[in-house]
Amino acid sequence: MIPELLIDKDILSSAMMQEVDRCKKAIELAEQGKKITLICGGDPGIYAMAGLVLEIASTLNSSIEIEIVPGLAALNSCAARLGAPLMHDFAAISLSDLLTPWDLIEKRVSAAAQADFIIVLYNPKSKKRIKHIARAQELILVHRDGNTPAGVVTAATRENEKITITTLANLLEADINMQSTVIIGNSKTFQWQDYMITPRGYSDKYSI
Amino acid sequence: MIPELLIDKDILSSAMMQEVDRCKKAIELAEQGKKITLICGGDPGIYAMAGLVLEIASTLNSSIEIEIVPGLAALNSCAARLGAPLMHDFAAISLSDLLTPWDLIEKRVSAAAQADFIIVLYNPKSKKRIKHIARAQELILVHRDGNTPAGVVTAATRENEKITITTLANLLEADINMQSTVIIGNSKTFQWQDYMITPRGYSDKYSI
Repeated sequence: MIPELLIDKDILSSAMMQEVDRCKKAIELAEQGKKITLICGGDPGIYAMAGLVLEIASTLNSSIEIEIVPGLAALNSCAARLGAPLMHDFAAISLSDLLTPWDLIEKRVSAAAQADFIIVLYNPKSKKRIKHIARAQELILVHRDGNTPAGVVTAATRENEKITITTLANLLEADINMQSTVIIGNSKTFQWQDYMITPRGYSDKYSI
Repeated sequence: MIPELLIDKDILSSAMMQEVDRCKKAIELAEQGKKITLICGGDPGIYAMAGLVLEIASTLNSSIEIEIVPGLAALNSCAARLGAPLMHDFAAISLSDLLTPWDLIEKRVSAAAQADFIIVLYNPKSKKRIKHIARAQELILVHRDGNTPAGVVTAATRENEKITITTLANLLEADINMQSTVIIGNSKTFQWQDYMITPRGYSDKYSI
């Protein structure tokens, strides 16, 4: 996705799921004195590669210099595409139980729903993992109205981008896949035109 | 902060706390056919101006075209300065009770602590609001060890930037002010050198 930045650079790439090898290789090359840039989509600091690099570096007690450059995470770009859903306290939760026990994920979904956080769901669904989003919906519905706006953004800002605003009750009818991020509003979130808006609270205090 | 982008532009600026007037003015000018850019620090979509613009536009049922351009929120940039604290599920909570009832804020802090979310505290302290951070610390300590790493980033990436990594128990000894963001780790977060690192869980599954 960034060919113009890669001219005259040596490039190493790896397949999905090879994150550990990729980070180890990057550190190994940096240890040899090379200047290495490890690239990932989104913000490397949010559910991404920054942590794994630092974890591996700490295991090796490496003395290489590491700089984390922040970027736009899926929550930043998907929120912008939906309007302004993240105007108030929110929780980000990944529904992938590959590296996290499912009971802990359920606990977090319920806690976030009960305390009226806006909820951003990462990794809501994959080919193998299709029931997790339905269970999350069920848990959130215990505490939140079915008419609560819910947004689904797939492949944000890319050619195949798809944006859907629906409701919590109808969430499962939306197309959701591995490239999707789901944002469920809090009890104050409303839809106007094609925008999902969570009020910050100004209207309780000022005339808007 | 962006003079080079403002050459040949008409500029209207307003003081802090005048957000409602500022948004109304922007919409009013856009309604007249002008192309208006409303600028704010961080990501306009996270606790910032995007929501207020859309709220006011919805009240007026305005037909102007609005595009939200995402940016780096404090949570993105502060996380990067601290290392990789946001590698797992996290909750963002503002401790400002100017527009939100304090009991709801307490409920959210407790829920986030109990479900082992990494916690990002926006607006942790101001000149008038000095006890809120102490109360938040107290609520989090009910569920989380005092040795949990806690990071304070003040004025991220600016000239007067200050980065502190301390513990939840010692948090109040750090310099915290209106420009600070506080990030409290989850039960797995650790400190290595000057980095605050939350493991994603790879080490439970793979040899790192």
